[in-house]
Amino acid sequence: MGNRVFITDYISEVNERISVLFDERDIEPKLMESMWYSISAGGKRVRPVLNILANKLLDGDLKETLDIACAMEMIHTYSLIHDDLPALDNDKLRRGKLTNHMVFGEAFAILAGDGLLNMAYEVLMANALKYSENIKAHLLATDYIARSVGVSGMISGQCADILSEDIEEDKIDINVVDKIHINKTGKMLTASLMSGALITNPSKEELNAIETFGRKIGLAFQIVDDVLDITGTEKNLGKSVGKDIEAKKMTFPHVYGLDNSIKIADDLVSDAKDALGMFKDKAKDLILLSDYLIKRTN
Amino acid sequence: MGNRVFITDYISEVNERISVLFDERDIEPKLMESMWYSISAGGKRVRPVLNILANKLLDGDLKETLDIACAMEMIHTYSLIHDDLPALDNDKLRRGKLTNHMVFGEAFAILAGDGLLNMAYEVLMANALKYSENIKAHLLATDYIARSVGVSGMISGQCADILSEDIEEDKIDINVVDKIHINKTGKMLTASLMSGALITNPSKEELNAIETFGRKIGLAFQIVDDVLDITGTEKNLGKSVGKDIEAKKMTFPHVYGLDNSIKIADDLVSDAKDALGMFKDKAKDLILLSDYLIKRTN
Repeated sequence: MGNRVFITDYISEVNERISVLFDERDIEPKLMESMWYSISAGGKRVRPVLNILANKLLDGDLKETLDIACAMEMIHTYSLIHDDLPALDNDKLRRGKLTNHMVFGEAFAILAGDGLLNMAYEVLMANALKYSENIKAHLLATDYIARSVGVSGMISGQCADILSEDIEEDKIDINVVDKIHINKTGKMLTASLMSGALITNPSKEELNAIETFGRKIGLAFQIVDDVLDITGTEKNLGKSVGKDIEAKKMTFPHVYGLDNSIKIADDLVSDAKDALGMFKDKAKDLILLSDYLIKRTN
Repeated sequence: MGNRVFITDYISEVNERISVLFDERDIEPKLMESMWYSISAGGKRVRPVLNILANKLLDGDLKETLDIACAMEMIHTYSLIHDDLPALDNDKLRRGKLTNHMVFGEAFAILAGDGLLNMAYEVLMANALKYSENIKAHLLATDYIARSVGVSGMISGQCADILSEDIEEDKIDINVVDKIHINKTGKMLTASLMSGALITNPSKEELNAIETFGRKIGLAFQIVDDVLDITGTEKNLGKSVGKDIEAKKMTFPHVYGLDNSIKIADDLVSDAKDALGMFKDKAKDLILLSDYLIKRTN
């Protein structure tokens, strides 16, 4: 990210705003501690940054999208806390720290996840009411988010991912692998971009371009994640590695092999960049971010 | 409920509509089965009925509030599925059937809960967009719901409830008991009413009256629930009984004794009815429902 200072500024704004949103609420103290532990654990804030950059691409106002960016991080963090639970992926490390349930117990990990998911919608509704002259655009953004992270999106992807562990090697269906990845990660990343875009009341062409970019970059992001599970180190990633192979998860490297997977991801990022062609030089931040996402080591 | 046929009609409408909302979505099959198992398990549909009756009291349109009613039942069902988990209340029976995790395993119970909570917001957003000439009122309704069932409402109540198990007998604080009940059940029941009311763009006086009614009836409802945990039978209630005493939960009967608790609940229902005085005869359905809620055996 050549523009590192720039992106880092956005991350600081997001972190400060999340802190304010927590302080504003009367939350049971242990629940607060549990939620705060995970959301302040130093994630990359990819989703908030995508949200802000898509909004900026269309000349939006950072103030108007900042709470949406924070809501995306709340939804992401809830999904990590629940995915890490013993009944699901049973992970002990996340973002270089013990997972939520290892520190607060399963009950508070479940409730912290529930709390973060619901708080995202609280924040989205309060923000929509604050910008009530643009209320319909905010509703379209929340509607897009809700459909992307729910039972026809991220949650179904997580279910298919769990169930894929039981499928025999010779019965792997490439279409199923694609669908898992698109649902599990792609839709949420796309929603991060689209919600930032939608509140600027963009043209259909602009929206289509951003949606295509999101789908491509989302799939590439998940492939890189799966590749790093094999090639990465626990120290760099801040989470356990090699777990997908152990669980025989239906990942891209598992199905296509490691080298092919890297090539597929490269091609997807290239397509993603092409999709932003109409924005010319204005898309440079999103393109820099795409390069970072594919070349990252954590 | 003297008006039984009437209320039963609403329950049928809600059940049919929930079924349609499920059919409309592309949900991973096992997730669908798990969510459907719990939401179709024959609950009393108290929250949807409260929503519809509050809407009707203010001359609303049933079609416009029906999806909000369904969303309230989704949120209620998610909270039951998660509360029943081994890490929380560890319940094996609910609505006369095995709890969700006993049938589908913990992973799918957690994800089904997540799915139902998120689906509620999907449904609320889609409905708000459908009635876009009244969009701000719908946003106010969703905002009220989100604040009521979240980290400053239902979820904090559930946390305080779990933590209350560890408190020594001589350290019980009556204000804490009240707060647990108001958060755990009262806010959600009030939100069911208020969301049905808010979309009719009511006067401040009407809204205050309904909110007061909700708070009183909500607390009474939870007290009756706790009383039934002692006096009720597993057969009638469709769930395990005596669990609160076993867990030394900070319930009203535990703190005030059984007879006093029943009297407090009676007084609350009486106050609740008084709060609806301005609506005169139009409030008769809500008053009938109040009587049913206090006299119920399940």
